[in-house]
Amino acid sequence: MTTKASVFIATSLDGFISRLDGNIDWLDQANTAVPNGEDCGYKAFMETVDVIVMGRNTFEQVLTFGEWPYEDKQVVVLSRKGLVVPDGIRKTVSVSSEVLELLVERLSSEGAQHLYVDGGQTIQSFLSAGLLSDLTITVIPILLGTGKPLFGSIKSDVVLTHLSTQAYTFGFVQSKYRIAKDA
Amino acid sequence: MTTKASVFIATSLDGFISRLDGNIDWLDQANTAVPNGEDCGYKAFMETVDVIVMGRNTFEQVLTFGEWPYEDKQVVVLSRKGLVVPDGIRKTVSVSSEVLELLVERLSSEGAQHLYVDGGQTIQSFLSAGLLSDLTITVIPILLGTGKPLFGSIKSDVVLTHLSTQAYTFGFVQSKYRIAKDA
Repeated sequence: MTTKASVFIATSLDGFISRLDGNIDWLDQANTAVPNGEDCGYKAFMETVDVIVMGRNTFEQVLTFGEWPYEDKQVVVLSRKGLVVPDGIRKTVSVSSEVLELLVERLSSEGAQHLYVDGGQTIQSFLSAGLLSDLTITVIPILLGTGKPLFGSIKSDVVLTHLSTQAYTFGFVQSKYRIAKDA
Repeated sequence: MTTKASVFIATSLDGFISRLDGNIDWLDQANTAVPNGEDCGYKAFMETVDVIVMGRNTFEQVLTFGEWPYEDKQVVVLSRKGLVVPDGIRKTVSVSSEVLELLVERLSSEGAQHLYVDGGQTIQSFLSAGLLSDLTITVIPILLGTGKPLFGSIKSDVVLTHLSTQAYTFGFVQSKYRIAKDA
């Protein structure tokens, strides 16, 4: 399989991607210090992505943003139950209850070369299944103490290869790691 | 109070300072990739430290290392119960059950200008008490999934100021943050 699956996400220094209720007010607040036009590589990353895979929670949170931010990018929402996709985005958003390995195989066979895996639980599931290729984590200079963690329990250690780190003048630190594939 | 209290510690990318049983085999393994003579700033940091403050767990783990690594540096072990300090290190190691604020005040009045706060629980207690000045965290490129976390719950967000980040060729990423003192 040559399809890559990447994580591109921001966390607090203590490893949370949102508060327990999903709130990212702390991230919005931190982003006010980011100069106009600086996106910490997000747009360049998105340009390499064919399909976004996210969990139901993330999807429902994105819907609350009002405007759908992914334009005509293909999005797969993981959900075991049915899920109502609003009319305006039905052309690009599908719902899947496939086993992750089969989902990745299908998307790969359909030509997808690069998946963007988003949302805490979805990231953890991909990681546990050994399906992630790399992680780009942007650490925000704040401690929350509690929230939804980026990482969860895993069966065994996952050794990473550090690829690059960039510290921004506004205090964000972005590191990219490659995940060794199981032999 | 002008006495600084610093954290200088290594964590896995998922924020653990040791496995649940205190084992740091993963850190020892990662350190085999570090070139001879490279200590990621530890010696330079230690030269600025007057007193090391650690918890009982950390103390007992350090004792298992065989040779006492802190030479003639003053060490305070936090323990509410009594604690037997081995003969060889009684000149420099004391045990304290003081409230942290009072401990810091006393050490300060005795001339200490820089405390090195070590051990997960002790770090969390200092952080909760608003007594930490800065954090130097060296992130090791591995996910453990479980273990003793560096950070724990806190009463409210702690906003940090990013001071510097250094990425090493062997994959460690060290970031230093200042903690804003409560007004």
